[in-house]
Amino acid sequence: MWHDVYLKAVLQPDYQYATEHLLPHLFDALTAHALMLGRCGVQHADAAARHLQALREEPFPPYDPRIEDVFFTLDQALVRRDPAAAGALRTALSRNDLDMTIYRLSARLRLMRALHRVLTLRRTLLAFAQRELDTVIVAYTHHQPAQPTTLAHYLSAVESNLARDTQRMLGALSRLNLSPMGAVALGGTSFPIDRARTAELLAFDGPLENTYDAVSASDWQVELASTVMVASTTLSRVLHDLLFWASRGLIALEDGLVQGSSVMPQKRNPVALEHARTKFSKAIGMAQSVTLSTHNVPFGDINDPGPDMQPSLHGMWQEFREGTELLTASLAAPFVNREGWLHEARQGESVVTELADAITRFTGDGFRDAHARIKRLLAALHAEDRPLSSVTPLDLAGVGVTLPEADLRAALDPAGFIARRVTLGGPAPQVVAAQLRGASDRLNTDTDRHAALTRRFMDAHTHLRASPGALTGGPA
Amino acid sequence: MWHDVYLKAVLQPDYQYATEHLLPHLFDALTAHALMLGRCGVQHADAAARHLQALREEPFPPYDPRIEDVFFTLDQALVRRDPAAAGALRTALSRNDLDMTIYRLSARLRLMRALHRVLTLRRTLLAFAQRELDTVIVAYTHHQPAQPTTLAHYLSAVESNLARDTQRMLGALSRLNLSPMGAVALGGTSFPIDRARTAELLAFDGPLENTYDAVSASDWQVELASTVMVASTTLSRVLHDLLFWASRGLIALEDGLVQGSSVMPQKRNPVALEHARTKFSKAIGMAQSVTLSTHNVPFGDINDPGPDMQPSLHGMWQEFREGTELLTASLAAPFVNREGWLHEARQGESVVTELADAITRFTGDGFRDAHARIKRLLAALHAEDRPLSSVTPLDLAGVGVTLPEADLRAALDPAGFIARRVTLGGPAPQVVAAQLRGASDRLNTDTDRHAALTRRFMDAHTHLRASPGALTGGPA
Amino acid sequence: MWHDVYLKAVLQPDYQYATEHLLPHLFDALTAHALMLGRCGVQHADAAARHLQALREEPFPPYDPRIEDVFFTLDQALVRRDPAAAGALRTALSRNDLDMTIYRLSARLRLMRALHRVLTLRRTLLAFAQRELDTVIVAYTHHQPAQPTTLAHYLSAVESNLARDTQRMLGALSRLNLSPMGAVALGGTSFPIDRARTAELLAFDGPLENTYDAVSASDWQVELASTVMVASTTLSRVLHDLLFWASRGLIALEDGLVQGSSVMPQKRNPVALEHARTKFSKAIGMAQSVTLSTHNVPFGDINDPGPDMQPSLHGMWQEFREGTELLTASLAAPFVNREGWLHEARQGESVVTELADAITRFTGDGFRDAHARIKRLLAALHAEDRPLSSVTPLDLAGVGVTLPEADLRAALDPAGFIARRVTLGGPAPQVVAAQLRGASDRLNTDTDRHAALTRRFMDAHTHLRASPGALTGGPA
Amino acid sequence: MWHDVYLKAVLQPDYQYATEHLLPHLFDALTAHALMLGRCGVQHADAAARHLQALREEPFPPYDPRIEDVFFTLDQALVRRDPAAAGALRTALSRNDLDMTIYRLSARLRLMRALHRVLTLRRTLLAFAQRELDTVIVAYTHHQPAQPTTLAHYLSAVESNLARDTQRMLGALSRLNLSPMGAVALGGTSFPIDRARTAELLAFDGPLENTYDAVSASDWQVELASTVMVASTTLSRVLHDLLFWASRGLIALEDGLVQGSSVMPQKRNPVALEHARTKFSKAIGMAQSVTLSTHNVPFGDINDPGPDMQPSLHGMWQEFREGTELLTASLAAPFVNREGWLHEARQGESVVTELADAITRFTGDGFRDAHARIKRLLAALHAEDRPLSSVTPLDLAGVGVTLPEADLRAALDPAGFIARRVTLGGPAPQVVAAQLRGASDRLNTDTDRHAALTRRFMDAHTHLRASPGALTGGPA
Repeated sequence: MWHDVYLKAVLQPDYQYATEHLLPHLFDALTAHALMLGRCGVQHADAAARHLQALREEPFPPYDPRIEDVFFTLDQALVRRDPAAAGALRTALSRNDLDMTIYRLSARLRLMRALHRVLTLRRTLLAFAQRELDTVIVAYTHHQPAQPTTLAHYLSAVESNLARDTQRMLGALSRLNLSPMGAVALGGTSFPIDRARTAELLAFDGPLENTYDAVSASDWQVELASTVMVASTTLSRVLHDLLFWASRGLIALEDGLVQGSSVMPQKRNPVALEHARTKFSKAIGMAQSVTLSTHNVPFGDINDPGPDMQPSLHGMWQEFREGTELLTASLAAPFVNREGWLHEARQGESVVTELADAITRFTGDGFRDAHARIKRLLAALHAEDRPLSSVTPLDLAGVGVTLPEADLRAALDPAGFIARRVTLGGPAPQVVAAQLRGASDRLNTDTDRHAALTRRFMDAHTHLRASPGALTGGPA
Repeated sequence: MWHDVYLKAVLQPDYQYATEHLLPHLFDALTAHALMLGRCGVQHADAAARHLQALREEPFPPYDPRIEDVFFTLDQALVRRDPAAAGALRTALSRNDLDMTIYRLSARLRLMRALHRVLTLRRTLLAFAQRELDTVIVAYTHHQPAQPTTLAHYLSAVESNLARDTQRMLGALSRLNLSPMGAVALGGTSFPIDRARTAELLAFDGPLENTYDAVSASDWQVELASTVMVASTTLSRVLHDLLFWASRGLIALEDGLVQGSSVMPQKRNPVALEHARTKFSKAIGMAQSVTLSTHNVPFGDINDPGPDMQPSLHGMWQEFREGTELLTASLAAPFVNREGWLHEARQGESVVTELADAITRFTGDGFRDAHARIKRLLAALHAEDRPLSSVTPLDLAGVGVTLPEADLRAALDPAGFIARRVTLGGPAPQVVAAQLRGASDRLNTDTDRHAALTRRFMDAHTHLRASPGALTGGPA
Repeated sequence: MWHDVYLKAVLQPDYQYATEHLLPHLFDALTAHALMLGRCGVQHADAAARHLQALREEPFPPYDPRIEDVFFTLDQALVRRDPAAAGALRTALSRNDLDMTIYRLSARLRLMRALHRVLTLRRTLLAFAQRELDTVIVAYTHHQPAQPTTLAHYLSAVESNLARDTQRMLGALSRLNLSPMGAVALGGTSFPIDRARTAELLAFDGPLENTYDAVSASDWQVELASTVMVASTTLSRVLHDLLFWASRGLIALEDGLVQGSSVMPQKRNPVALEHARTKFSKAIGMAQSVTLSTHNVPFGDINDPGPDMQPSLHGMWQEFREGTELLTASLAAPFVNREGWLHEARQGESVVTELADAITRFTGDGFRDAHARIKRLLAALHAEDRPLSSVTPLDLAGVGVTLPEADLRAALDPAGFIARRVTLGGPAPQVVAAQLRGASDRLNTDTDRHAALTRRFMDAHTHLRASPGALTGGPA
Repeated sequence: MWHDVYLKAVLQPDYQYATEHLLPHLFDALTAHALMLGRCGVQHADAAARHLQALREEPFPPYDPRIEDVFFTLDQALVRRDPAAAGALRTALSRNDLDMTIYRLSARLRLMRALHRVLTLRRTLLAFAQRELDTVIVAYTHHQPAQPTTLAHYLSAVESNLARDTQRMLGALSRLNLSPMGAVALGGTSFPIDRARTAELLAFDGPLENTYDAVSASDWQVELASTVMVASTTLSRVLHDLLFWASRGLIALEDGLVQGSSVMPQKRNPVALEHARTKFSKAIGMAQSVTLSTHNVPFGDINDPGPDMQPSLHGMWQEFREGTELLTASLAAPFVNREGWLHEARQGESVVTELADAITRFTGDGFRDAHARIKRLLAALHAEDRPLSSVTPLDLAGVGVTLPEADLRAALDPAGFIARRVTLGGPAPQVVAAQLRGASDRLNTDTDRHAALTRRFMDAHTHLRASPGALTGGPA
């Protein structure tokens, strides 16, 4: 009956995807629909709920090219059990609203899992930062050594980004977690139904009101893709830095995360980080697939943001998950070359801002003036090929600055540089420690919220797959 | 001094962009910084605030290739007026935190404007919908006539999407509206400053705490791009439908929005809609530019998400604005071919779902059975090349269905089809009217919130550019 | 040994991908390398070639988490058979050059298959066009009826695009079909080897000269993605038109390519076309993944354009293949509603350009003048709600034009409109017939070239997997 | 007449873009059309050509909101001069074919300029490489030191990529350089015209045959975007490396290409490279805009790939140009820290592959065995915290290897490592020198071809804007 190409390119892979990823959501949605119909007085609807409960526990039939999809496979299984129940279930139901409901339930689950991984990465970052409050690193700007700070300060900045990503994901959840059920093909139905009840049973926040919107909207899927894009670009930047540090021996991964070479015996490649980078690149690419699939297509029920988009979203979540997991694993217990970093901080010129600050305080001539004098001082040192660490009060006098030897030495000490930066959000260890406490509280709040949501969604699922008696009893 | 290529490709266009788009934000940020320094006891800082107030009202100097950028142009103007004030202003200040602050202020303004346009489009949609509560249209699914609904039902669905876009934009605003000021280069400063005060003066919700994060983060810019992508894909879908309708003469634009042909005298092209489509395509493209510019670059202060990204964001907002305005103009008072749509609804088969519903109610054999009988009925009609409107009770009897003539006629009437669909969010006129009332309330709430935010941001700006006396007095 | 996350996110899926898609290329490349080494006098290399020939016919070992990848799995299998041969094979060999070679061989195969599908679609288009030389359609510009032409004219235009895509793909092939073998890690080797010989055995056009380039370049992969993007955007446009026609009943797909509705009994959705559209959207998305994976990463041997990119390319080719196949199937024998199209052409105003042309010829006052007069004529008709087909010489006189009745009727006849357009490349049936003859010749040439290339690549493969004796004999 | 929004968002910017960028092409195309018409016997057409010649030298009228676009502005100017000539010019002419012709002429010019810049960058790379034939660098793979090679070897690899980009651009040129003129609206004309003649006058390779294709195709624009994407991703990778080197002080830019800091006196940021990176990111983003604007739109004359796409292409070329120029400027005469690189090569372990090769040659036990022994040797050294340079024959003996002291020292010398790698395309100075000679020949050939094409296009333009007498005489 079906064209061979259509069978192989569309129906069969759709069936496979649905059976692998969507069946629990299909059963949940249909069961909720049946229970709602039953409560609205539709004959045989309660029986349909019971049959679904039984069918759910049986192995789902393998692909049969004569049947269009999982919906009709299940429909026929129901007919074989109880034609009246099968007929009743089809009341006020279309694949349009059903599919969109299933995709939202599936997306909700994946988003919750992604949130879990982001929370785990945040916890890993905070624990790592806690260990590195005093670890001096040289921060670069524009690809040049800029100022000393601590590894904890850097890691806390990364965690702050992910806290905002958590907010974004929870925002997306609130726009995703609405029920299309009852929209039927697009215009609702002439049967009296209770959309709020179906929504409640499925732990949606409520029905997605407009029935045309319910079967047509793709905004929530593009928003999911967007949250992944935002987080992935940030993490791609962090990976740039981690790989930059790894390339200079400042960090190194555990044995289980590095690979060697078939030809170069010395190699210990930080491949977990490299693969994480590509996985985020690919997550962004899949997100762009999602965008492209909704671009310039009709606003209505079509396949593009429907079944065809689900594998793209699946791929996107998978890349994002693997990228996040590889990064989390890499940051759990990497080797940190504290001596290497301290050496760089001491040998270079990244502390020189503090010298300008010290002069500003000492002379009262303003930072602008101090900055200019330091530039002349550095030029003089470079001309003699001398490092900044060799500078003396005499050198300073040469650019018109009088500064006691002790103040000079203190200004040139990286740890001192950091310790003096107690600005809100700055790198001084006690300031970062305060940031970490705040971040930890915020993380605990987010984790609690995630756990509560998880329980709520799981409870709904558990209720819907429970015994028939429990089912018609409604949630306690 | 500068390489000619660098001058022409970077410094000069940056200067031009800054003078065209960023100066008010530059003055606001520097003035707030000066006032904060003054309150923290930095000598000459109050004078700096007064000089900035005066300089703001003077014409900004034209580009001078010897001076790096607008920051140093202003710095030198200050020096000429009062070297001590100029020196003081540079305390605890870097172009890093200053630029990021300016970009956030600029983005805030543009986001507020975009919100305004989205609110206007929503209002236009609701007004349009209110006029078309009874206008029958044939909704298509999978590019085929599906069911009758009303134009109001469709337009209400579109407005619902934009209400969610409004939420997204307000979410983005909350993550954007944080102050980087005081982060200086990346590690704060050894001077005692009050970051909360600067944030308050600039009407930020507070400081962006971690100072490394403050100069490095690009997530808020990618999120802005994402909100535009989400809204633009939705609107591209709506434009598909509007152009589909226009191509069939079901809607037509006002004269001022159509163009003719140099060779085909009959042409009245709905070009405003076509250009709107491209503008959304280009807005998405610019959004992807923003994503690409943050991909795999260091997490730290760099040019990519800094000055180089601003023109991309500017272009994105411009395309989005023009797309939105063209669409709003097109929907203000288009011609609606009500007869044409009603004719299509009556001649086609889109009402046949209701016939199945009617049979289901009449026979009690379940929708599944009715659906199958109707398919046989249609096959019989097609074999005789008869339209659905010609069907008789005798035809129904031929597929085993008994339905009174009156019920049959009622089922085949598009307006009846719609009137019976009183499901929550469905197309029945009184149901859509209720949706529109809810939508209108929601829109008013959003509009009020937008107005309050606008006032708050404008008040801060007004205060900062006010007379010196007012300035040092602080906000009442 | 390996971190569990690394195993599951990287090593295991890489192994699975390699065993499913890359093994023949791996054996070919290693065998060619062994034969080359043997000819260069490396001891035991010929034995290695013979062992590879035997191992190739055995089942490849299942995944063993203790072994890194397929390369080392094969290496160990060789060691078990003949340690000396295994040792010899590793001479002047790295996974770097080997992998890049395998990816190129794999890409060559997929590109050849994609070319085959493009050639098939071109042949289908030409056959379809040949049947529709006289089928009048109304061409739209700016979403409005513009001028009559023929379906053959439209289809011939599409085929012309695909002919250019064929050129692009062959261009990409010439830049892809170069051998990295012998580049080893990146700097060649201190052993004397013969890179040209390995290249020849693998049917490459020659070695990719610079050894650093050989292991680092990703341009050829981005170019492959680009050729898919170019062809996919064109085909997305064609699908827009096909779906527009299908939505108006002007074309209809065969039964095996349409799907119905679970709720709307009348539906016959042209889903094959709709799915084809999404598949091209997703092909473009995967192509953007490829681009993203090469963006801002080091130019050197890394995983991003290596193993990590292969599944993206695989997905891209698969979407492109399925989109092309669905489109080809849809165009093989669709129903064409010739009466519907002719009716539209006769009832509308799309012929009016020819009326202007006729007036121009008759009056000699220039086209500009005729165009203006026709606009006035149409305005007069619209005021009276009359169709263009009702126009009389008297109406023409009203706008100052004298045209005999016969000329008027001839000008308004769509078939006449078309027949008079004998411009090179125009729609007149004999002119399109000439285009189709040229297109057919071009297609035959391209098909012959494709066949010759296929033979050449297959012959190399056949030779490399042949019996050991044949192997060391070299290609005749 | 026009809606204010349409005027500001569409008509006015279109007019501005056209007057800034398209006028010479508009005059060329119209003049060629007039000359062709004249030769085909159309009355007053030669006069039109002469008037165009005169109008071309006058200032083009400023924007007048009553006139649609530059075409009608010019049309009215012609009418004022000679209504008959104006009328004649409109014969067999539409804005559809005219615009597409102008866009192709404009794209041809920009592509030629981009080619020029790519050729210049190639020349700069070859000159740089020629100076650095003996400059040892440490090549990294997977972000870890891998093997010594030379800077010349690396630069030659980059140039090879750009040579392939040159091929791609010339391929795109061949598909771009076809004339749509004479396609009129889409279906040619009923007037006898000579499309080949117009094409010849405009230095096209011939007419784009199918007239529907001529006004509809967007493939050539997406291909242009693709060539930019391919080259830009490659150059983004090269910039990654250059910035990596700059961050470690291994290269430094000239003074005119670096910027300092307002707060960190020591900073000399390699900003030219950083801006080049973003410009390539943005070029890719603009290329994606081009793709998006052709996605899922009708295949026919529409605005999306027409006027609306031109600013996107303009922006893309500009970003690509500036990126290329900044990179070329940066590579003209950078400081190369030869000592720094040599130090890294001597202190690290990147030479160890050669030690394995030496052992392989000495022992005859195969590379596989040598590789394993070296890994054990390195483990032993690391356990004692000793550098590879300290290794002695005794250490070698500890892993079962006997190698004379002299062979050991030779193997550990980076320059020796390189000198022994004389594989085709390898890093040995004389081998790279040979590559550079070949590359130089190839570059000269490409440069000559570019010059010949430039002359041909310029000659056509010169002829068309020449004196009326010359015009009607035809190209000598």
